[in-house]
Amino acid sequence: MARPPGDIEALIALMARLPGLGPRSARRAVLHMLRKRMQVMEPLARALTVVAETARDCQRCGNVSEAEICRICADPRRATGAICVVEEVADLWAMERGGGFRGRYHVLGGTLSALDAVGPDELRIPQLIDRLAQEGVREVILALNATVEGATTAHYINEALAPHGVTVSTLAQGVPMGGELDYLDDGTISAALAARRKL
Amino acid sequence: MARPPGDIEALIALMARLPGLGPRSARRAVLHMLRKRMQVMEPLARALTVVAETARDCQRCGNVSEAEICRICADPRRATGAICVVEEVADLWAMERGGGFRGRYHVLGGTLSALDAVGPDELRIPQLIDRLAQEGVREVILALNATVEGATTAHYINEALAPHGVTVSTLAQGVPMGGELDYLDDGTISAALAARRKL
Repeated sequence: MARPPGDIEALIALMARLPGLGPRSARRAVLHMLRKRMQVMEPLARALTVVAETARDCQRCGNVSEAEICRICADPRRATGAICVVEEVADLWAMERGGGFRGRYHVLGGTLSALDAVGPDELRIPQLIDRLAQEGVREVILALNATVEGATTAHYINEALAPHGVTVSTLAQGVPMGGELDYLDDGTISAALAARRKL
Repeated sequence: MARPPGDIEALIALMARLPGLGPRSARRAVLHMLRKRMQVMEPLARALTVVAETARDCQRCGNVSEAEICRICADPRRATGAICVVEEVADLWAMERGGGFRGRYHVLGGTLSALDAVGPDELRIPQLIDRLAQEGVREVILALNATVEGATTAHYINEALAPHGVTVSTLAQGVPMGGELDYLDDGTISAALAARRKL
């Protein structure tokens, strides 16, 4: 069997390692690019090269950035005295899409995990504590995932922040927008009932 | 709302245009690459750049190639006197994965379509006819998709090849390997019945 040319095959193998793509869809994507070399493949090659060269972690919050300090940390209008703690950059982007938060972020880079030997130092928690005084932080909002690992990490951070005199809050739990009770898991319904509010 | 940095956003927009990826999965793929800059993003950027620079169409058969003539056309062992006609490069790769065909290919680049103004000249059919004498072809196998467009195109090519004294054949139609009758469409079952063979 004559396979696709070596370089193309290498490209397919690399594409197939991206999340959401397998060998079959990687092949399809590469064939699409080969058909649209000028319109798709060359711009994508250039964009990837630029990002691979320039992208780095923000030295302050851990966000993806093109400079030492990311655009959010560099924006003085976002020095609101509130820091939102998230697990991953993806969560930061999700919060920004929500559009409700006007302060700054702190990306942990994961959750505490005894199994994977992830301790507080791996999670940039000391850096978070350093920022409290440096930036005059009054409130820390924990926007961690509603998982066991997220809850454990939130609990740990809450304890670690206690001596520093900042308000620590977490996202509300309850029925999501458009959510139908019949399709929700029992835990969510119980949490929403416990946190019911007066109309 | 502070969006991801401009270059990264441009990269996500380009990735989202690939088949099988949307904005959400493109974002996920880019975040994955940002986390694995050395292991994933840089090799992928290099591979894409190489392919974007070197990939071209084989001058003879239309396959994707790194040289003027693709590896299959350049291989003298594949001068078997048989040419397999396919719609797209993806189909050529599928035939090669099947592994049963040892001759050469001819990629049409689509199917005849009055609506889209695709005529025989757009489909490299004249080039196919030129190859018959040049390469001493005795059999042309039409491996077109089992669609109305594929059948129309196969019919046209069969007529066009009639004066040239080559055998024209098409892939057999019938029950696919592992196919269960109950899940097959009626057309396939009728075709398989009409083409039944003695055991």
